[in-house]
Amino acid sequence: MIYGYDPRTGETVGEPLPETDSAGVDLVVSTAAAAGAAWRATPAAERALALEAVADALAARADDLWVTADRETALGEVRLRGEIARTAGQFRLFAQVIRDGGYLEAIIDHADPAATPPRPDVRRMKRPLPGVVAVFAASNFPFAFSVAGGDTASALAAGCPVVVKAHPGHPQTSAQVAGIVRGALPYPDLLGLVQGMQAGVDLVTHPSVVAAGFTGSVAGGKAIKKLIDERETPIPFYGELGSVNPVVVLPSAPKAEVAAGFAGSLTLGVGQFCTNPGLMFVPEDDELRKALAAAVEGTAGGPMLGERIRDGYLGGLDRLGELTLLAEGRPGEGAWAVTPKVFTTDLDTFAAGLPRIAEECFGPASLVVTYRDVADLAAVLGRLEGSLTATVHGTDPDEAGEIADVLAVKAGRLIWNGWPTGVAVCWAMHHGGPWPASTSAFTSVGATAIDRWVAPTAYQDWPAALLPDELKDDNPLSIPRRVDCRSHM
Amino acid sequence: MIYGYDPRTGETVGEPLPETDSAGVDLVVSTAAAAGAAWRATPAAERALALEAVADALAARADDLWVTADRETALGEVRLRGEIARTAGQFRLFAQVIRDGGYLEAIIDHADPAATPPRPDVRRMKRPLPGVVAVFAASNFPFAFSVAGGDTASALAAGCPVVVKAHPGHPQTSAQVAGIVRGALPYPDLLGLVQGMQAGVDLVTHPSVVAAGFTGSVAGGKAIKKLIDERETPIPFYGELGSVNPVVVLPSAPKAEVAAGFAGSLTLGVGQFCTNPGLMFVPEDDELRKALAAAVEGTAGGPMLGERIRDGYLGGLDRLGELTLLAEGRPGEGAWAVTPKVFTTDLDTFAAGLPRIAEECFGPASLVVTYRDVADLAAVLGRLEGSLTATVHGTDPDEAGEIADVLAVKAGRLIWNGWPTGVAVCWAMHHGGPWPASTSAFTSVGATAIDRWVAPTAYQDWPAALLPDELKDDNPLSIPRRVDCRSHM
Repeated sequence: MIYGYDPRTGETVGEPLPETDSAGVDLVVSTAAAAGAAWRATPAAERALALEAVADALAARADDLWVTADRETALGEVRLRGEIARTAGQFRLFAQVIRDGGYLEAIIDHADPAATPPRPDVRRMKRPLPGVVAVFAASNFPFAFSVAGGDTASALAAGCPVVVKAHPGHPQTSAQVAGIVRGALPYPDLLGLVQGMQAGVDLVTHPSVVAAGFTGSVAGGKAIKKLIDERETPIPFYGELGSVNPVVVLPSAPKAEVAAGFAGSLTLGVGQFCTNPGLMFVPEDDELRKALAAAVEGTAGGPMLGERIRDGYLGGLDRLGELTLLAEGRPGEGAWAVTPKVFTTDLDTFAAGLPRIAEECFGPASLVVTYRDVADLAAVLGRLEGSLTATVHGTDPDEAGEIADVLAVKAGRLIWNGWPTGVAVCWAMHHGGPWPASTSAFTSVGATAIDRWVAPTAYQDWPAALLPDELKDDNPLSIPRRVDCRSHM
Repeated sequence: MIYGYDPRTGETVGEPLPETDSAGVDLVVSTAAAAGAAWRATPAAERALALEAVADALAARADDLWVTADRETALGEVRLRGEIARTAGQFRLFAQVIRDGGYLEAIIDHADPAATPPRPDVRRMKRPLPGVVAVFAASNFPFAFSVAGGDTASALAAGCPVVVKAHPGHPQTSAQVAGIVRGALPYPDLLGLVQGMQAGVDLVTHPSVVAAGFTGSVAGGKAIKKLIDERETPIPFYGELGSVNPVVVLPSAPKAEVAAGFAGSLTLGVGQFCTNPGLMFVPEDDELRKALAAAVEGTAGGPMLGERIRDGYLGGLDRLGELTLLAEGRPGEGAWAVTPKVFTTDLDTFAAGLPRIAEECFGPASLVVTYRDVADLAAVLGRLEGSLTATVHGTDPDEAGEIADVLAVKAGRLIWNGWPTGVAVCWAMHHGGPWPASTSAFTSVGATAIDRWVAPTAYQDWPAALLPDELKDDNPLSIPRRVDCRSHM
């Protein structure tokens, strides 16, 4: 049985839920696949309306949803209401994306009989992957990266059915959200939910599963990747794993703002963000050092999402504890509460300790590395593993020098004078990056997240009567297309 | 040592070439990586000129290139000159592609301070993968899928250095082509060449390699995939493996044309195409049966590219030999010559023999399956493995019924009243398909093949002075972009 727990008390919450056994997983996947056949054939305009119905249904239930989630996560009303709004917004964004149709990358090359050799009429567009998408929900966003999160919204938008493996940190929330989404979809079985670790194994090895999305730890992601690698029929694995999110503070950066912004970003949501600033490079500067210490001392901890996550944080602190403690916040309250801690070392010690010294410590901890000369930074930054983000603070772009080029190959998103927590759900967002930030070149946030669930089909001299509307000469759906080498709005 | 062989005589050709040892592979990869840093920073317009210089250099040397290749492949002057022209054409296409800039998928979302939460300025474009692309050359196209083939051209276009593992079937041709390409590039080390099977292992496990392209057998592809799966840092593997390329002949199809087209497509290049029509479904019809037999009997075999490929073909014939021989062509001449053979069976026997009965037999062999009713086909087609292509012959699109939908999830390219051999190098081409046709959702032929070697980077509130030209507000390179949700030419 799966129990939800209250991070404030460590006690179980509500009735336990059964684990899904192998036959159960097979049933859920099979019914999802059957519903998927009809969904795949549903025109984009109708799919868009269904996504908006899901958004409306989630928003309408915000009053009970946040209460259920708060009991299992202790994330609080403001954050959880905001996250529900974001989750609904993601469904609305993907409704826009499929109405727009640009993601289909429709291309038409009319026949050219004069070419050598003569060229047939060739048309190409992306189609939904033919099968079920498996989604492994994350712990730290019980809505936006969970049952009805961005992976689910983008896969449904693409035309694929989805089966989610619930995160054990919020089983009741998962079940409640699944019920709401299923009730709003034209074919409820388009969304399936399974619970339990073995169910995840059965899911990702099921022959009808054609792709998997995952948000979680490096260890968890590696375990799923191994299962996928061993499949008879390989499938794409879109994992978003660990990220240390380096921040470089240039000498020109305003010290007070940097200190306040850092402390806020570090401790938001008890530091439980994959974009948490876990590593910061600052000039050797007593004033900045004092400002950072004061800002961190003004923060407070809180209960982490689960006991194992808390234990992982404490293990990370043990490792960082070999360095000097710069400052700590006030301890939080509750069974699984932790304290924000910031450690410090100099650039040489840091470089000598790579790669272990730069490992992610999930939670409100960070390592501040002091440097003497900006020119020394590029070589060290070049040795970091991949991250979701890399941030530079400064007032003079010239001061960044080659740092910008180095960071551009180390992270999926570059930020200037901002903080990595907070990921805008927009068309241009990229939430990914080199391993271990991501296992692929795709994003899990923003409009282009839909690209993970589609694959091209080319139609050669195919009869107009059998062509999808998206590829007909008169462009009845008015989608952006590239026709005879030129792209057209 | 690596020896080239003449398929017409089975004798060695030219001087043997040394296998590249581990230290040699490391040196080639490292020098390619170093050259890649400069190439990555080279503006697209200059990269395009360099690609055109490579095209010119290859075309200028066609007179000796085809002779070298013919000695090692026996493919003949006409085919080889055509293939050299195609190979040069691929470089010219990718010069167009990078001048156009659409493949960068540039997106700009200006800041929206009124949004909840306020949205920063976010801009996204694709950048070359940060490292070396490994390319495993194919046997059957000594130019177009080899050292200077589509993988190499598209990766260089994207901004990545390339190291090719030469195919042992044409070592001299590989060395000659590498010399020509290196001489035409601004940094010769952008293209490295290694020879020998262990060199391939060392290449794909090298830490500086960031992606691999492969064209070859299912067994070979699985072996490379296993090496990649075991890497500490995962990399994308773009393999184009086996494909049986089903053809469905509807009752309305003109019999004589189908018979002639089939025999021609089957025996082109001694059947050594990944798009060879290895499986065809035809109505039970004595007239069609006779036309097919007569057409096949009018064909001739020839020497295959290598002894192992010939042996593989003979092994496949043993398996198909359990069925009825419909017809065979005239035997070819030369040491490794083989004879075209077409077998036949009925739909029930075929369905009972799946999946083994539908395995690819690389070479001029095919299996013709007779059916009584078009309505019986969809269920059987639905059980086939993935293919690069699926073809339908008929005069009435309505007659295809649900066959079109079934084939659309079984193949990357659908062809009407044509033949799968001959892959147009154009913007809309898709040369890929479900496993085992391909290991990914990407194409290895056509403009979008470049998508394999790039990954997005997002820039958040990034200073204009540090933004790539492609993302500057005034669009100095006039590339297609999506700005504030709308796509623009």
